[in-house]
Amino acid sequence: MGEAARLAEEARELQDAAAALISNTWKEEQALRQRALALESDLKRLRSSFDLASKENHAALDPKIADKIDEELCRARCLISDGDLASLLPSKAHGRFLKMFLGPVNVRATRKEVQLKVKEEYNGYRDRTAFLFLLFPCTLLLLRSYIWDGCLPALPVQLYQAWLLFLYTSLALRENILRVNGSDIRPWWIFHHYCTMLMALVSLTWEIKGQPDCANKQKGVQLFLVWAMMQGVAMLLQNRYQRQRLYTRIALGKAKRMDVVWGETAGVDGQLWLLCPILFILQGFEAYVGILLLRTALVGVIHEWQVIVCGSLLVLMAVGNFANTVQTLMAKSRFKAKMRTKSRHDFDSNAAPPDSSPNYSRSLKES
Amino acid sequence: MGEAARLAEEARELQDAAAALISNTWKEEQALRQRALALESDLKRLRSSFDLASKENHAALDPKIADKIDEELCRARCLISDGDLASLLPSKAHGRFLKMFLGPVNVRATRKEVQLKVKEEYNGYRDRTAFLFLLFPCTLLLLRSYIWDGCLPALPVQLYQAWLLFLYTSLALRENILRVNGSDIRPWWIFHHYCTMLMALVSLTWEIKGQPDCANKQKGVQLFLVWAMMQGVAMLLQNRYQRQRLYTRIALGKAKRMDVVWGETAGVDGQLWLLCPILFILQGFEAYVGILLLRTALVGVIHEWQVIVCGSLLVLMAVGNFANTVQTLMAKSRFKAKMRTKSRHDFDSNAAPPDSSPNYSRSLKES
Repeated sequence: MGEAARLAEEARELQDAAAALISNTWKEEQALRQRALALESDLKRLRSSFDLASKENHAALDPKIADKIDEELCRARCLISDGDLASLLPSKAHGRFLKMFLGPVNVRATRKEVQLKVKEEYNGYRDRTAFLFLLFPCTLLLLRSYIWDGCLPALPVQLYQAWLLFLYTSLALRENILRVNGSDIRPWWIFHHYCTMLMALVSLTWEIKGQPDCANKQKGVQLFLVWAMMQGVAMLLQNRYQRQRLYTRIALGKAKRMDVVWGETAGVDGQLWLLCPILFILQGFEAYVGILLLRTALVGVIHEWQVIVCGSLLVLMAVGNFANTVQTLMAKSRFKAKMRTKSRHDFDSNAAPPDSSPNYSRSLKES
Repeated sequence: MGEAARLAEEARELQDAAAALISNTWKEEQALRQRALALESDLKRLRSSFDLASKENHAALDPKIADKIDEELCRARCLISDGDLASLLPSKAHGRFLKMFLGPVNVRATRKEVQLKVKEEYNGYRDRTAFLFLLFPCTLLLLRSYIWDGCLPALPVQLYQAWLLFLYTSLALRENILRVNGSDIRPWWIFHHYCTMLMALVSLTWEIKGQPDCANKQKGVQLFLVWAMMQGVAMLLQNRYQRQRLYTRIALGKAKRMDVVWGETAGVDGQLWLLCPILFILQGFEAYVGILLLRTALVGVIHEWQVIVCGSLLVLMAVGNFANTVQTLMAKSRFKAKMRTKSRHDFDSNAAPPDSSPNYSRSLKES
């Protein structure tokens, strides 16, 4: 009896302590949040007036001072958007997709370690996935040639399509979660996954016809599998080079650690010339498969609506991927041009005695 | 220049404050967590020795004292598992399903208000859903009779099936999230949603055959739609009565607010006699449809594997639902019998002067 009462009393005490801790933390967080928001708007104001000034009298402003101001502003911005402060600021909206699937639950991690774990796991997931992405269609096509007599049975193909649907759904969910956690993944890549989800769903309802005249009827499925194989290769290459590049960028202090470079123009510079042609060929092939599907539907061999939808989606994705790749390439070359002029400046300032730019060297040490 | 440096400095300060707050909170949480865990194991030990004692010498133990001990233990247990403390304790494992779709992200809310919002939203979602659940198959069957000449076209049925797949996936995700947030939803109902997910997926690959002899070929789809309609009615009834009951139970302090009574035996008592027969009829019909599907597949009218899988799943779900309903009914009647003896005790103790049981009345006031 006595022990039960004692335990109940202790539970009450602990409960009170927990409630106090939660409400205190909440209050302190609110205070910090207010200050961070005020700072953020100050920064924005200063940045826009600085940009205006440096545009208007490009010559009048001392480039060294302008660089330093730019540096300070970037640093403050980076601290707000990537530091521990970031987890206290109101997050980007969760987006309709997450709300539809998960309801209004909060998927933002407060502690940086957890956010990074999520990011790491996402990278690992993509690696494993790319491997399967190559393996499955490969196996299906090999079995078709050597065992199934040139005619794919429905079940294995449908299992593969169901896997694709699951895969794209989980990728879309994870990328949305990363976005909420501060990653700056390009919206197109998420939208791209919505398209592929839709395509996997549609392809599930698409009847896999058997004998007779199997080879002709299954032309579309075969093309799709070949395309999937090529995509698997591209994904493997991308993953490897992007990871390498992300680590390089983090080491140089240019990327936030939550960034996802799912974009297609990644790769350490030398490897870009290997990756880019593969990507463009892949996009061309994607559009080609799409147009082929649309032609069969419109000329009138197959009358299924699925063919039209899949064809249109493939063309849409090819165009979108191409546009995004080109955009990123252009942004990259702009960035490089800027870096080149900048390093010339740096050379000039390095020629001067080192203590003439105390802020600069201090910020380098901190990065 | 000066302002930029000042802002950068302020950003650094804020960042340090945020980092300190997060790490302090983490430390304090850890300390509370340790104490709560110790308390939890103490409670468990005491509870088991108390249960043993009350079993062995049922007569020797004064029932009033036994009741009080029971009361205190329950109260302590409840504070730990439902209070603010609960959010600090290590949560139930996230489960494979959530990890598969979302990765290792934390979906547990720390603040009670947020948890309750998630719960409320889940209930609202189920209400909206039940309505659509009734509307869609109803519309399909009506259109079939009056417009489509007794032959369902493939596209609307497949859209409906795709919606089912989305619905069951999101329900399964949300229920897993509720579980992580401390709801005690029965595992069977989550497993049940995995089964229905699988069935929706399989039914998508199932070709909807057209003319000629449409009525015969579409027998399975029709039965499925009729069953879905009945399920819609049952869901509407369940939602209404369960909500009512949950609120009653919360008001009486018997349920934690995170509980989900998705189970089928809910309903305020009088309404239980309306709900139960409907549920049993529904389960019987579910099994009947399943067996009908299995028969067509085995006797050999339709040779698709989808028929066998859907049939087996329906039978499995019917049996599981039945078993769970009966189990819950039995638990309910046991609980009632216990309450009856208890209220007799209470009557006895109320006959005694009220200050003879200070703890009891105090705990009543607090509830």
